Amino acid sequence: MRIPYQQLKAEFERVLTGLNINNNIAGAIATVFADNSRDGVHSHGLNRFPTFIEYIKEGLVFPDAVPTKVNAFGAIEQWNGNLAPGMLNARFCMDRAISLANDNGIGCVAIKNTNHWMRGGTYGQQAADAGYIGLCFTNTIANLPPWGGTEPRLGNNPLIIAIPREGGNVVLDMAISQYAFGKLWQYEAQNKPLPVPGGYDTEGNLTTDAAAIVESKRALPIGFWKGSGLSLVLDLLATILSGGDSTAVITQSGRKETGVSQVFIAIKTDNERNASLIEQIIDYTKSSESDTEILFPGENMLRTREQSLKEGVWVDEMTWEKVKNL
Amino acid sequence: MRIPYQQLKAEFERVLTGLNINNNIAGAIATVFADNSRDGVHSHGLNRFPTFIEYIKEGLVFPDAVPTKVNAFGAIEQWNGNLAPGMLNARFCMDRAISLANDNGIGCVAIKNTNHWMRGGTYGQQAADAGYIGLCFTNTIANLPPWGGTEPRLGNNPLIIAIPREGGNVVLDMAISQYAFGKLWQYEAQNKPLPVPGGYDTEGNLTTDAAAIVESKRALPIGFWKGSGLSLVLDLLATILSGGDSTAVITQSGRKETGVSQVFIAIKTDNERNASLIEQIIDYTKSSESDTEILFPGENMLRTREQSLKEGVWVDEMTWEKVKNL
Repeated sequence: MRIPYQQLKAEFERVLTGLNINNNIAGAIATVFADNSRDGVHSHGLNRFPTFIEYIKEGLVFPDAVPTKVNAFGAIEQWNGNLAPGMLNARFCMDRAISLANDNGIGCVAIKNTNHWMRGGTYGQQAADAGYIGLCFTNTIANLPPWGGTEPRLGNNPLIIAIPREGGNVVLDMAISQYAFGKLWQYEAQNKPLPVPGGYDTEGNLTTDAAAIVESKRALPIGFWKGSGLSLVLDLLATILSGGDSTAVITQSGRKETGVSQVFIAIKTDNERNASLIEQIIDYTKSSESDTEILFPGENMLRTREQSLKEGVWVDEMTWEKVKNL
Repeated sequence: MRIPYQQLKAEFERVLTGLNINNNIAGAIATVFADNSRDGVHSHGLNRFPTFIEYIKEGLVFPDAVPTKVNAFGAIEQWNGNLAPGMLNARFCMDRAISLANDNGIGCVAIKNTNHWMRGGTYGQQAADAGYIGLCFTNTIANLPPWGGTEPRLGNNPLIIAIPREGGNVVLDMAISQYAFGKLWQYEAQNKPLPVPGGYDTEGNLTTDAAAIVESKRALPIGFWKGSGLSLVLDLLATILSGGDSTAVITQSGRKETGVSQVFIAIKTDNERNASLIEQIIDYTKSSESDTEILFPGENMLRTREQSLKEGVWVDEMTWEKVKNL
């Protein structure tokens, strides 16, 4: 079913303020969840909201906490997230990076001890909406085996790169796993093969059988050995730039996925001069003969957003009922 | 056959100075080619040297040219490569990025109108050897179809991320194609299947048949739609940050792969504090049960380097004879 964006957001706010969270914070959190559903990222919108509420109730996320500065040098800063809501910490860090980029051309902010940011694309968008190139990445709990290995030791460490563009930003929002586990469960439930191989079965054969991958826990990073290396390197960067916990520490501590490390970079650019360069690149990419429509990263999301604002935001009925009863 | 590193480098210098290139420039270029062969990257070492000499003779690479500054603001700079040797321009730019990072914590240098840098890892190493995190990427001529498309419109735009590490840097040096064309030709010649699918055949089926991929020109980016998006975004960044030519312009101009655009980023970091964090991450990654040895990015290269310095650098005999006759 579809419901108006404002109704969805108001419902999130009702639940949050019911936990004695002040209106400003509740509004900011509600906006992120509502925006994610609006843009079609249901896994980190409505569908994730009950888990987020659980984390608050369990004392894993401190809704009133704010980040504190640990270190600063020139255009780079380190912050402690103090386990505040991940989306508010992330928004804060990208704002800092933009401010540093405004002064220095580029800014880099690393944060430790923060929480899940839900959709990384949110903060890429934030930079691009402000006219800046935005780059960010996070580490996660281990959920992918390294190349050669059979047990999860790497995070799917999403990498976001956003470029401001008139008529709709280009936003790459890419986890290092070929498929999210949410997607694997979905294919498993529907008993449908994956469009491309997504991992190995318990016997070590590459497979499009989602159930077999869920069983083996051997989901595939993009590009096999390449994504494995990229995931490791992103975790190294997030950990050493923030001085925070690595995928290894987060996983081995046995805790839930909290206290992660993240990096936010903003770069100043000349959007007026860029406009024609960007359109030329996109037009050329789309000029290929094609089997299916060629889209730039973020283009499909722009269409979903438009539809959501016109016809209402699609929600899973059962989850919607659940949230209304929170 | 194997030959001593110094002999290989001296041979490159002999050829270069024979073209009236001064000793300093010839030495710097020879070092890059010899280092690449030493580290096992033959495609951009000895094997590429004859083509590089051709490019100089054809007036596509100007050995005496030097980069000139176009723009600077805080910690970011734009340079014009003036079609100087790509490896010298790249070394220069990473040096500038390091210097900016020394002053500002982070530095970003973009260059237009430059030439092929050979092995991107060289410049990641350079930053890491100086104690800085190094990130760089380049655009290229179109050689990959975008996701959904059947004709090449994207470059394989290598991305390099290097992290200083006692006992051997971590260096991810990753083209966005699953396999380089050089690798496809090698499997084709040996009539062996690729270890994992590397592209599509002319009928649009995913295949491990290198010959079929060479025929269809439908090599695969890492992670299917994900690598396609990443390649596009790296080209957008390289183009707008440098104000230079995009993959679209380079390809449509009909020229050889010259006048490309590149970005170099260096970040200051506390290597003493990092040491234990890095080892913990690597140890955890390697602690997975495994089918084959788990390596960190750059680890295999370190072994090849050690062997080359001990036993001599492996060279393809025919190419070695060819270079001796240049």
